[in-house]
Amino acid sequence: MLETTIGGAKRARIGYELDDLSLVPSKRTRGADLADVSWKLDAYRFGLPIMASPLDAVTSPATAARLCELGGLGVLNLEGLWTRYEDPEEVLGEIAQLTPGTDATVRLQELYDEPVKEELIGRRVEELKAGGMAAGSLTPGKVERYHHAALEAGLDLLVVQGVVVTAQHVTDEDHEPLDLRSFTARYDIPVVVGGVASAKSAMHLMRTGAVGVLVGLGASSVSTTEAALGIHVPLATAIAEVASARSRYLEESGRYVHVIAAGGIGTGGDLAKAIACGADAAMLGRPLAAADEAPGRGAYWGVSAAHHTLPRGRYDRVEPLGPLQVILEGPAHRDDGSVNLIGGLRRAMGVLGYESLSKLHQAELVVRAR
Amino acid sequence: MLETTIGGAKRARIGYELDDLSLVPSKRTRGADLADVSWKLDAYRFGLPIMASPLDAVTSPATAARLCELGGLGVLNLEGLWTRYEDPEEVLGEIAQLTPGTDATVRLQELYDEPVKEELIGRRVEELKAGGMAAGSLTPGKVERYHHAALEAGLDLLVVQGVVVTAQHVTDEDHEPLDLRSFTARYDIPVVVGGVASAKSAMHLMRTGAVGVLVGLGASSVSTTEAALGIHVPLATAIAEVASARSRYLEESGRYVHVIAAGGIGTGGDLAKAIACGADAAMLGRPLAAADEAPGRGAYWGVSAAHHTLPRGRYDRVEPLGPLQVILEGPAHRDDGSVNLIGGLRRAMGVLGYESLSKLHQAELVVRAR
Amino acid sequence: MLETTIGGAKRARIGYELDDLSLVPSKRTRGADLADVSWKLDAYRFGLPIMASPLDAVTSPATAARLCELGGLGVLNLEGLWTRYEDPEEVLGEIAQLTPGTDATVRLQELYDEPVKEELIGRRVEELKAGGMAAGSLTPGKVERYHHAALEAGLDLLVVQGVVVTAQHVTDEDHEPLDLRSFTARYDIPVVVGGVASAKSAMHLMRTGAVGVLVGLGASSVSTTEAALGIHVPLATAIAEVASARSRYLEESGRYVHVIAAGGIGTGGDLAKAIACGADAAMLGRPLAAADEAPGRGAYWGVSAAHHTLPRGRYDRVEPLGPLQVILEGPAHRDDGSVNLIGGLRRAMGVLGYESLSKLHQAELVVRAR
Amino acid sequence: MLETTIGGAKRARIGYELDDLSLVPSKRTRGADLADVSWKLDAYRFGLPIMASPLDAVTSPATAARLCELGGLGVLNLEGLWTRYEDPEEVLGEIAQLTPGTDATVRLQELYDEPVKEELIGRRVEELKAGGMAAGSLTPGKVERYHHAALEAGLDLLVVQGVVVTAQHVTDEDHEPLDLRSFTARYDIPVVVGGVASAKSAMHLMRTGAVGVLVGLGASSVSTTEAALGIHVPLATAIAEVASARSRYLEESGRYVHVIAAGGIGTGGDLAKAIACGADAAMLGRPLAAADEAPGRGAYWGVSAAHHTLPRGRYDRVEPLGPLQVILEGPAHRDDGSVNLIGGLRRAMGVLGYESLSKLHQAELVVRAR
Repeated sequence: MLETTIGGAKRARIGYELDDLSLVPSKRTRGADLADVSWKLDAYRFGLPIMASPLDAVTSPATAARLCELGGLGVLNLEGLWTRYEDPEEVLGEIAQLTPGTDATVRLQELYDEPVKEELIGRRVEELKAGGMAAGSLTPGKVERYHHAALEAGLDLLVVQGVVVTAQHVTDEDHEPLDLRSFTARYDIPVVVGGVASAKSAMHLMRTGAVGVLVGLGASSVSTTEAALGIHVPLATAIAEVASARSRYLEESGRYVHVIAAGGIGTGGDLAKAIACGADAAMLGRPLAAADEAPGRGAYWGVSAAHHTLPRGRYDRVEPLGPLQVILEGPAHRDDGSVNLIGGLRRAMGVLGYESLSKLHQAELVVRAR
Repeated sequence: MLETTIGGAKRARIGYELDDLSLVPSKRTRGADLADVSWKLDAYRFGLPIMASPLDAVTSPATAARLCELGGLGVLNLEGLWTRYEDPEEVLGEIAQLTPGTDATVRLQELYDEPVKEELIGRRVEELKAGGMAAGSLTPGKVERYHHAALEAGLDLLVVQGVVVTAQHVTDEDHEPLDLRSFTARYDIPVVVGGVASAKSAMHLMRTGAVGVLVGLGASSVSTTEAALGIHVPLATAIAEVASARSRYLEESGRYVHVIAAGGIGTGGDLAKAIACGADAAMLGRPLAAADEAPGRGAYWGVSAAHHTLPRGRYDRVEPLGPLQVILEGPAHRDDGSVNLIGGLRRAMGVLGYESLSKLHQAELVVRAR
Repeated sequence: MLETTIGGAKRARIGYELDDLSLVPSKRTRGADLADVSWKLDAYRFGLPIMASPLDAVTSPATAARLCELGGLGVLNLEGLWTRYEDPEEVLGEIAQLTPGTDATVRLQELYDEPVKEELIGRRVEELKAGGMAAGSLTPGKVERYHHAALEAGLDLLVVQGVVVTAQHVTDEDHEPLDLRSFTARYDIPVVVGGVASAKSAMHLMRTGAVGVLVGLGASSVSTTEAALGIHVPLATAIAEVASARSRYLEESGRYVHVIAAGGIGTGGDLAKAIACGADAAMLGRPLAAADEAPGRGAYWGVSAAHHTLPRGRYDRVEPLGPLQVILEGPAHRDDGSVNLIGGLRRAMGVLGYESLSKLHQAELVVRAR
Repeated sequence: MLETTIGGAKRARIGYELDDLSLVPSKRTRGADLADVSWKLDAYRFGLPIMASPLDAVTSPATAARLCELGGLGVLNLEGLWTRYEDPEEVLGEIAQLTPGTDATVRLQELYDEPVKEELIGRRVEELKAGGMAAGSLTPGKVERYHHAALEAGLDLLVVQGVVVTAQHVTDEDHEPLDLRSFTARYDIPVVVGGVASAKSAMHLMRTGAVGVLVGLGASSVSTTEAALGIHVPLATAIAEVASARSRYLEESGRYVHVIAAGGIGTGGDLAKAIACGADAAMLGRPLAAADEAPGRGAYWGVSAAHHTLPRGRYDRVEPLGPLQVILEGPAHRDDGSVNLIGGLRRAMGVLGYESLSKLHQAELVVRAR
């Protein structure tokens, strides 16, 4: 069932979260060690289908470098603490000591009041490059203002990310709208853009020349966007819609735009499901905030938690789960799927009988009746 | 799916609560500062689509005046404590000290046994007028008895409110039925009437000449009507039904009757969803009972909690959330959408790409599969 | 949707509990004091549509007499403690002191091992008659053995009750099958029989000459039949099915068989919903076990809780809620619908605009989407 | 409804768990003592439709012997503690003292690092034979390596079990794929194989010559496969699918392959539902781990809890419920269906009016609307 009607008058789509569905074995199994989990984004090949969220609790220049070694990609928030503070370590240390609740929100609001400094944008990009690939994120309204500093310092990949980004009128209240199509035409740098949650919007974004789209509306475990704004699209539905747009756009243009699932992926099972729904890779937040190396040091918060008039995210604590490498590739000593995410993905591919991420897109699904 | 069948024999509509659905971004975004949240009811224009419930915990002459300054509208219960007691402050003070449970119910029953005094109705209306616009509520069975005092004192807007009000036979057990059509014909005062929960009943009420209808059956967070009577209609469904009746009535009569969602709206997200379903404005209870200025002083109860033989509402405590202005317009230091409701609405309109409340009626919806 | 398919192979009906649905107002309201809640069963007219369950925690000769005064009907279990013990008061007193858990189960098993005495059956029926109408229950397998004693003592109404009773082969493991059709032909006494949960089985039972059928499979708040046997039919669906069988049987035979909803009705709202689904009356257990006069004295257990090899019910405590009259007719000082059940029913009928129980069968329903 | 669509693009089946459905009485009842619960697997007839899971917490040579006496069948894990340790009692004793959590997982990983010894396989099979029938399990990847020792010692029944086993490519990462068809052709021993969860895969497995298939993907109460891998098929759906494959294979081949439901069956009600969905018998884990005789001594864990890099099961404690015989055949002093499973099944068959397990396949089902 695709749609329902509310009150006989108002149509509504039916939405599924990853939790609502499970993967169904096919008639074939395969050794997990045969599973190829690599993927390619523009000219870059990655061993793991993992991007780290551009959150100050998750990605620092150091963790980006470490993730690069492991085969993934870290994205630094170019409007976060690292470009507001010369040395953000002290600030991060203070944040890590906060107690979840209103006081934490107030302090985050204060700390993020410090303005972004263009000079620091350049410096952080250089630090990222020193560690491997330099990927950074900007919000749509700040791209025109800050991209020069980043590009001059050699940024390799730009992520343009807002709760919702659309092609037709990319703006926020204080700035000129960003013309993404003209931006991607002007510069050679590959751009990944999102969040997006429907086929139609995704199609428009793909046509701007982006190499990838982020699916999901920032609905991580700490997001309160739905409570504050009423806006949400269940992730499995969003991925499947955007993946179908990718197919249509591929027919239309011959170009394969990558689909990256973002928000709420916490286990190996979630990762396998997101890819089965059509994602090429996943952007992870909380699972990586649980790493020993994470700049959040046991705390986790989204950008929107610090909004000065309408915070839309919780400050939360995360249980440490070991080094980044263990969280991604094991070995796990926990039984809940939160450690060895890639091991879980590989084994799922083996049990389901698929040898590559793109084959996993064919997996059969089942949804629980209630 | 609009309908189901119970036991192969009994048809039932499918009902959705606001919680069951979310708003889906369109292909356009817009600056939140461009969002126009004003609306017009009869000859009155309001800056905010907010009415305060006619509950003693929420609306006093003073909070009505304050809400008026902020652009909203407070409705005083003309059969509540303010018209039963010369000086209700002491009674309100005592109620604020009660402990939730049966003892609170018994004490409320006693305190509301004090009879309504017509003389006080006039005086309260004058106090309301002194603070701005004078809006008051009466139950259908008491309109004939009490409206003179209110109208003579200059009431600007009459709200006729019961759990359910119908056009065909508006009555309660002790009184003559109210003929709403004749009432609106006799007097020049605009009348808002409800609760109503279906298209057919709404159509009948619209034809009585009412300028607005209240959608919802008093199902606030403290209502126990469903347990006591088995009666309930999920709010999103009720709004969508009544909104479709409004469209049909507009075609029939050329008159636009306003639809006001009442009951169970607690966050900016709820507010945005209610309007997206078709409401023009919302009547708020609990969120405003949490204001520093609220007459409930940290307590919240509905009228029906004091019914002498069949109480149908709980006496509850609410956490204080700041001044009225902050609850409505921020800035918020809480992350759960309970503060800065209008900020949430504006931002939702921006993210969804709609510039006015009536455009927001077009928003796409998604319902969670389970 | 009436049916679904499990695994593409096995059909299953969709079942609704009373909790899944709510009553929807019509276009008319009515004074609650105009609501007629009386009904007729065979030659007997009752002021209230209430039967007390044949449970030792609920019905004693004394409570049956009291309920009779109030307009309801108490049914004594003729195979319960009152026919096993000369003076069951001591046993009831001991049971009231048990602590919920396995020890309580073991003690119940022991106490119910005491055999039923035919001599006591006669005596209890006489006691019931002294208090008004004498109604008693027997399990199908024991009807042939015990009915003589009961009928000779003047029983007015026989309830034949098992978890499931069917017309075609009414039996239990130790006894000859009961031929209900021959039984009702042989004797003049009206017979009510159940539980039944489907239209087809109800039709067969109606054809045996029963004047009423009990709908529901003993699924009270303390029943564990579903866990132990896997057997259950959601009550709203069962009532609607059996009510449709009643209509067909009425066409076929000209005889109106009463439908009595049994099990899991705890509030005025439940009562109104059960009747709206098609019931003529309800058999109540737990709500009446909470009466000051209840023989359970604060404890509640079903017959099956004492089964010697497979107990299928919990021993539980109930909070005392006042005299029987208050529980049924108020006034209530609780706000959860558990007190003043009849007041809730009357008010529901008023709000919904129906003047009699049979009109309430027409009420519109809504089911929550999830 | 058989299928839904996710995001308009990705099809998904609708899946039901046993908990989602209940059994509906037919128009006939029957004495529970008339219920025949025996079944036949290959040349073996069993009084009870019960197999014990090949888990170290459940099946030892001694409990297998005891279960044999009672009419069931115990399956020893031939790659578990009994073939890794000369005397596993000490290890079992240590495991029984662990505290649920990460430490328990780590210790299980260490204890299961001890290699399997072929010599012990032979010895355990001899012990099993001394107690009655010898049934043992191997994972697909180890069948070629270990079956000789088992067969030489006289194994009567081989269970080939993995989370998912398929006919086309049975393998795991370290070993040659097992060709099941050639294996069953080579040897005379009856083979039961699984888990399987869809009609198509079951059909392939049936064609390999297996005498039975295990339905379910190891989804017991302690399994975390779904979290770690995202893989799961709700059990009722899986049973119904595989049962329909059995019917088609019977038409195709004239051979009736038995369907054994495995995982998550905890009560008599679950057992009755599993058989009503089409199973011939059930493989039980946790209910038998609660037996006084259970080798787990109050602890319960699945094989996958000890996986060295990706544990996918919890170590948990179980409340002791009495001797094996009481758990299976009562008498029960608990009211939750967890004791006297066979009594519950028999009584369900009586109440539903079916005299044999194969007739119970015809039972009507109802699923709760939400």
